[in-house]
Amino acid sequence: MESTISDDQKALLIVDMQTGSFEDSPRWNADGVVACLNEWADRFRAEGAPVYWIMHDGTSFGDFIPGTSRWELVDGLVRRADEPMIAKTANDAFYGTGLAERLRKERIQEVWIGGCATDFCVAATVQGAIFHDFDVKVLSGGHTTADRPHAKAEVIRAHYEYIWADWLPTQGKVEVVPR
Amino acid sequence: MESTISDDQKALLIVDMQTGSFEDSPRWNADGVVACLNEWADRFRAEGAPVYWIMHDGTSFGDFIPGTSRWELVDGLVRRADEPMIAKTANDAFYGTGLAERLRKERIQEVWIGGCATDFCVAATVQGAIFHDFDVKVLSGGHTTADRPHAKAEVIRAHYEYIWADWLPTQGKVEVVPR
Repeated sequence: MESTISDDQKALLIVDMQTGSFEDSPRWNADGVVACLNEWADRFRAEGAPVYWIMHDGTSFGDFIPGTSRWELVDGLVRRADEPMIAKTANDAFYGTGLAERLRKERIQEVWIGGCATDFCVAATVQGAIFHDFDVKVLSGGHTTADRPHAKAEVIRAHYEYIWADWLPTQGKVEVVPR
Repeated sequence: MESTISDDQKALLIVDMQTGSFEDSPRWNADGVVACLNEWADRFRAEGAPVYWIMHDGTSFGDFIPGTSRWELVDGLVRRADEPMIAKTANDAFYGTGLAERLRKERIQEVWIGGCATDFCVAATVQGAIFHDFDVKVLSGGHTTADRPHAKAEVIRAHYEYIWADWLPTQGKVEVVPR
């Protein structure tokens, strides 16, 4: 964790760290990712920067229904009761949520992103953020996925970090924050 | 090529099939992809559906400069002179181009997508399209990439087709059209 938070116009977005995903398949370094996100969340809180909890609402497909155990945050992850939850229904946390407008209203220009899964909602939310001209920092130790039929989780993670390092800037840019 | 074009509210988007990308690294089945895209473009033309040529303009980083040989379409790909070219500067062809508004004005609801590279501008444009509520069909035989440090091009292609097959719908949805 070499990078530091340099000012208060930042937000941490923790994406879909919900019990159901961790029940469905083993996730790369699940405990380590939880610890990493808790650590970063504490740093943000210490600097007065907000932590947003992006929670998938899968009511339309009968899973990840708010209030059920599969929808809850995975064990060990610590959310403070006053921290905002953003319900989303698409992969991209910026779709249909008003998140971009809310962040702009709070004068946030940089979003730090971690969560699950690297190749679905994390990747989609990284692109959503850059589409909306935010600067993005992806937490290398703070995103996870599962083995896929064609590649191990480690390979998938390496692929997205390779992609993000080379992603073209909009008004914002993407960086990966090393572990 | 089992699927057929069922009505005229469709457009084909051919993304970044530009010479420079094919000079920089060998691309998976380059000749086959060119042939596939030519074939689909002819089908669209035969049905009076538009073919859009998404062309990366890399002036800001001194490469893929419009009019230079690296910017030109790769050899063998046939564009009709009256077919629209859309210049883009980000990975996502919907960023800063007015493409979504233009397609809506033309009453297009479904975009068929092929091009290069699978993991950068094709993937970004697929997500851009779904973000803007278009239905998306990705041409399995019509997208290509290069070997990456951590995985062969075939694995990268398989990964994105796996992801697209499972992408959550917005008002639109994503499908992969088999070869």
